This record gives sequence, C-alpha cells and structure tokens, in this order.
Amino acid sequence: MAITFANRIYGMKSSEIRELLKLTENPEIISFAGGAPAPELFPVQEMIQVTEKVLRESGEQALQYGTTEGFNPLREKIAERMNRKFKTNFAYDNILITSGSQQGLDFTGKIFLNEGDVVLCESPTYLAAINAFQAYMPRFIEVPTDSSGMIIGELEKLLETTDNIKFIYIVPDFQNPSGNSWSIERRQQFMNVVKDYDVAVIEDNPYSEIRFEGEMPPSMKSMDEKGQVICLGTFSKTFCPGLRIGWVAAETNLLEKYILVKQSADLHTSSLSQRSIAQYMDSYDFDANIDKIKAVYKKRRDIMLKTIEEEFPKGISFTRPAGGLFLWVVLPEHIDAKEVAAKSIVYNVAFVPGESFFPNYKKKNTLRLNYSNMPEDRIVEGIKRLAIVLKDFYFHSSSSNE
Amino acid sequence: MAITFANRIYGMKSSEIRELLKLTENPEIISFAGGAPAPELFPVQEMIQVTEKVLRESGEQALQYGTTEGFNPLREKIAERMNRKFKTNFAYDNILITSGSQQGLDFTGKIFLNEGDVVLCESPTYLAAINAFQAYMPRFIEVPTDSSGMIIGELEKLLETTDNIKFIYIVPDFQNPSGNSWSIERRQQFMNVVKDYDVAVIEDNPYSEIRFEGEMPPSMKSMDEKGQVICLGTFSKTFCPGLRIGWVAAETNLLEKYILVKQSADLHTSSLSQRSIAQYMDSYDFDANIDKIKAVYKKRRDIMLKTIEEEFPKGISFTRPAGGLFLWVVLPEHIDAKEVAAKSIVYNVAFVPGESFFPNYKKKNTLRLNYSNMPEDRIVEGIKRLAIVLKDFYFHSSSSNE
Repeated sequence: MAITFANRIYGMKSSEIRELLKLTENPEIISFAGGAPAPELFPVQEMIQVTEKVLRESGEQALQYGTTEGFNPLREKIAERMNRKFKTNFAYDNILITSGSQQGLDFTGKIFLNEGDVVLCESPTYLAAINAFQAYMPRFIEVPTDSSGMIIGELEKLLETTDNIKFIYIVPDFQNPSGNSWSIERRQQFMNVVKDYDVAVIEDNPYSEIRFEGEMPPSMKSMDEKGQVICLGTFSKTFCPGLRIGWVAAETNLLEKYILVKQSADLHTSSLSQRSIAQYMDSYDFDANIDKIKAVYKKRRDIMLKTIEEEFPKGISFTRPAGGLFLWVVLPEHIDAKEVAAKSIVYNVAFVPGESFFPNYKKKNTLRLNYSNMPEDRIVEGIKRLAIVLKDFYFHSSSSNE
Repeated sequence: MAITFANRIYGMKSSEIRELLKLTENPEIISFAGGAPAPELFPVQEMIQVTEKVLRESGEQALQYGTTEGFNPLREKIAERMNRKFKTNFAYDNILITSGSQQGLDFTGKIFLNEGDVVLCESPTYLAAINAFQAYMPRFIEVPTDSSGMIIGELEKLLETTDNIKFIYIVPDFQNPSGNSWSIERRQQFMNVVKDYDVAVIEDNPYSEIRFEGEMPPSMKSMDEKGQVICLGTFSKTFCPGLRIGWVAAETNLLEKYILVKQSADLHTSSLSQRSIAQYMDSYDFDANIDKIKAVYKKRRDIMLKTIEEEFPKGISFTRPAGGLFLWVVLPEHIDAKEVAAKSIVYNVAFVPGESFFPNYKKKNTLRLNYSNMPEDRIVEGIKRLAIVLKDFYFHSSSSNE
C-alpha cells in the first residue's frame, strides 16, 4: 500500500526521551531521564475521598459531556490562584482547561503557525515544545540565552530583522532543561522590548511553585501591558500528572482561539478529573501538599549537587537550580553525551542527552539530570556510577578529588 | 494589538450545535439537540467501586505519567472486544487510546491532510468530523448517499477522476446525523472498490452496539484485505462520555503515525480514567450495561417515532433508525430548518438544523433529532410542541391527522 501522509508527518519524529523512558521501565535502572514527579508523594488517600465525593454528589454530571472551556469552579480556582501567586488579573473566563499543558503547546502551534513562520525560543529549550510546534512546520530561531534568560540585545535584533515571528516561547522559571530562572531585570527588559512588536509571548510555567529558596520573581504576565502574554499551566508537578489537567490563561480575544481549537481537538477534558481536582482544592490544603513536594525535592537536589561535586571529574560544569526538577550538565566540548548515555545504560543509569533541547544548533556535550523521581540513596548511587563512566572513558588520568 | 493567527484559524468556526447547547442548559428546554447519553443510566455506584479499587491497588501508577499508547490491559480488552463484535483481527498493539474519538478525528486530519487535499464523505456527514478536518484546510467532496450508504457508482467516478484524495470518512452504522446504516451489499461493494485505490478509509463507529433490532452487518474492517481501514471507537455511548476515552484501531504501520501525533498533542490520556474503565470491564458485565442502555433508547425512539407520526403535518419525511441516538427529518424544500429552530426555542424546544452536516451543499430543509437524552414524557411533549410550530407557521391549512 502506498497511502501518503501529510508533509508535516515526515518531519515529526518520536521523542528520544520517550524511547529512552521505555528502557527505564526496568526497575534496575536508576533513571535521571524522565521528568516524572515522586509518586510516593501523590495524595492517593485524599484522591479516593474526593473522587468518591464527586461521584456520589454529582456522578451524572461527572460522567457526562461537559463544556469545552472546562468546569467553571475549577477555572475560577485557577484564576484566583494565579492572581495570588503570579500577580495576574484573570477571571474564570480567561482560563481554558486542557489535557495537560502539552495540549496548550500543541494548540499554540495550531493557532499561530503557518508553514515557515518563525518561533523564537531560548537555547536550550523544552524538547516537547519543539516537538509540538514542529507539527506545524515553523522555522525555529534560538535566541542566545545565558543563566539569567534571553540576551535582550540579541532578541531585539531578531525581532527587528525577522519576518513572520508569531510567538516567543519561554520557560522563565526553573527552565526545563537548564534549571535556570530569568532575573527580574531581564524579565523587565524583555517585556519592555516585546511590547513594541505584534508577537505573542508563551509563558510556560510548570515549575515556579516548586521553589526551594529565594523570592518568586514577577511573572511575565504581571508586566504585560498589552495583553500579549499567554500563560500555560499544569497540575502535573504541583499535584499529579496522571489526571492530565493543565490550562491556558490569556486575554479573552486570544483564549477564544484556543477554545475553538480545543472543541475540534477533543471536545473537552475529562469531567471527572476536573471535578476531582476542584474538590481536592476545596477539601484539602493545596499549598501544604506543594510544601511536602518541595521539601523532598530540595533534599534530592542537594544530594545530587553534593554527589556531583564530590564525584564528577573536573572540567564539567552544571547548574544549581533554586527550584524545579532538573539540572543541566555541560561536559568538555569533545564529549558526546549520547555516547555517554549509551555507556551509562550498561551501568543501569539513564539521563537525557542535551541535543534534543536545541532545535537547530545541537550542543552535543550537554545533558539533563532529573532529581525528582529517584530516592536519595539511588541518586547518590546513580551519580557515582555516572562519574565512573565519565572517568573511565573520558578522564582516564584524573581522579575526582585531585 | 495585531497579533496574527495561522490561516487555518480564520476558516474555523464555533460549532453551531455548541452555541445551541449553551441555550439548552436551561432545564426548561426540551432538547433534542445534543448527542448526550441518558445520564440516569451511568453506572455511578460501580464507578465509585472501581475508582476506589484502582486508587487503592495502584494509586501511584494511576496518578503518574503513562505511556502514549495507553494502558495495556485496556488496549487488550478493546482489541478482544472488537474482534468478537466486529470480526476484526486486532492485537493490543493495534490500539491507541485517545481522549474521546473526537481526538481520533483530529489526528486523522493532522496525519493525512495537506492544504487542498481531498476528503470524501457521506452526505450528510458528522459535523464534528467536518470541524476537526477543517483545521487542516482540505477540500470536502460529498459522495451522493442514499439510505443504504454511499452510491458506489458515484464514489467510483470520484476516485477515478479526483487527485489527492487522502481518505474516505464514513459512519456506516446508525450514522450521525441520519440514523441510517449501510446495507451489507453496499459495504461489500464499497470495500471492493476502495481496495484498488491508495486511500485510507476512516470507519467511525460510536453507535453500532446500540442496536435495537436486526443483525449487526459486517464491519468494513472485517472486509479489509489491504489494511487500509482505520477504526475509530469510543466508550462515550456504550459507557459514559465524561471520562473522554476513545481509541484508534489500525494496522501498526498506520497506527504508529497516530502514536507520534498523540505524543506531541497531549502525551497520553488520563491514566486514572483508563484504569477505571479497564477495572469496570473486569468487575462488571459491560454488555449487560449496554443492554440496559439499548432498552431505554429503544423505548425513546419508539415514542418519538409514534408521536411524530401522530402529530407532524403531512409532507415531512423522517428516518426510522434501527439503533443509535438520532433520527433525521426532511421538511418540504421551501422550509428553512434554522428558522424553525429559532421559532421552536420560544416554545422551549431545541434541535439541530441539518445544514451543519453538509460541508458544501447545505440542505436547509433538514434537521436532526436526538432521542437518547430526554425521558419519554418530555419527548412526547417536545415533539407535540415542534408539530405546533410547524403547523402554525408552515402548514396553516392542514391539521395533523387529515
């Protein structure tokens, strides 16, 4: 048979992470590869309570079709929470409930991108965003980025000289993969520049509430005079990912496009999941649950950093994120992290080579480490094994503590 | 602000049904407009049991990320069930779990359609399929259709003379909106013709198990020698829609494209919803639940048909579906069903004017009536009111029983 597909399909490929994650289903493997939360922190007992309550009190509605926009009490709670945490000014009708924030990424591509249109992004940037946008065949331009965010002068040059830039995609807080956050100053400069251009800004924010130390800087949306910032949010990191509940928050003239697209994409998100989360937020202290998550992840980050410091050979740099789930490692330039990954898997250790996080200029000597999913003893063991691989194959003459 | 959107967005519009359904949230309204199941039949108590069991026994997995393909035991059960009911030959890895079968429609557009490619469909056809495909800017060609399916000679002519036909979209069993099913002969002729062309066939099948009388004819997939038929399925009508669980079933070379697209669209479908349905199928008799649904809908169809016969003026024809949720009414040619709908809403009766079900040549004198969602007494009352509107405004001189 020679059925042919749309052009977009030939440019899409299965995420390397996904193939890697299949390997990591083997429980022997110490995995720093995924971005999964610690499942032992999921409020399973509480979910039994709230799901039963929802089904008992409104079972017919919870199992019936719902509106595309989402369950209004949940939209309300999200708006209220964002306004409190991120100094935004949303009402319930600025919120569309999505099937995870991945769906918000896909819709963003669908709404804005004709073939060949330009997406500006950080360098590196979130690989699942690249994959989502790729389906609409844009041209990605990586804006040079340092540990405080995009370099504003470079961004300005690109905005001035490039046609058909449709949006700028950023993860300003504890970015996936780098773990870096934008400084306050850089945020202000960014918003000051973009307001002169007719581009949307996609502020993807799954991690900012997972902050271990320091003050939360202002969200981009809180400085958005022009209504051009679209926020993507999710319960995947602050609650649990298996329910697949995320959201898009935007001015209504932009949100209406997302609603239109949602309608033809999957009608609406699970009524039962939406009502269960809303009920959880009514019955329990949502912030207290986040505090529990933060306490555990902070310890895991600390032990990962400490073990890296003690065990890794010299000449390797890494970020020290103040929150989130990931840190980023830069190896000496001649080392290909994909090769390291292949060697590490023999030692039952997995991580994601960094090149998937660059749409264009792949820095092969980088890698991402996740610290949320493994208990402390396995983090120590895994980092030690990784250090052995690095030393044995790439740093023959050096030992870690010289 | 002058942010611009992708071209596809300007061609998309909010479903008229959706706007209509907002009106019907008023409980005063007798609605034949939606396609919602009878919520009083949802197995709420059983869902409380199975959800608790799933969370108690595998809470951490049910709330964690899952694989894109779906929960394997559920994929297995779906394959087994399709093979038994529809004489297909699927294994679990022919099944992708989707967020309702609407998502299967959207993915079909995304996978196959470049701008300007051709979709062949029945006339009328399912309006949410039109909306889903529309996002990829195809050209729709309606194949002339009678009460037994597409007219095969016309289909053959189109296949021979039209370039870039990517797929044929059909709902062979109790079609939405017409209520008609394809005859066995027409199914055989159809498969015999399409096997000579490199086109995919999308067999959308939400309703075939809701059969009130007669034998189930063979599925298109059961006659698919070439592996070109892609099946869309859903639990929305046989179980409940609020969980948003549907599936795509296809040969693996085609299914892998759907998996690729699912990954970037929303990663995967709710783990808890998938496990809950799988657990329900283990703990309870799924077919017995369908029998309950059929018994109720059959009575509702019967009373709707009887009341139409008694009350509607002469000169109006309508289908007599042997299953499913809808029947289709054809008014005299000069009557615009949209006008009738506007008049009926004053009498607190709602239905969907038929023109949304035609991508090109809109037959304004048609309308769709749903009988699954209203109890019998309201069906009688609603049809009587509708008859009054028709008689008062359009059939001044005639009375119903002349």
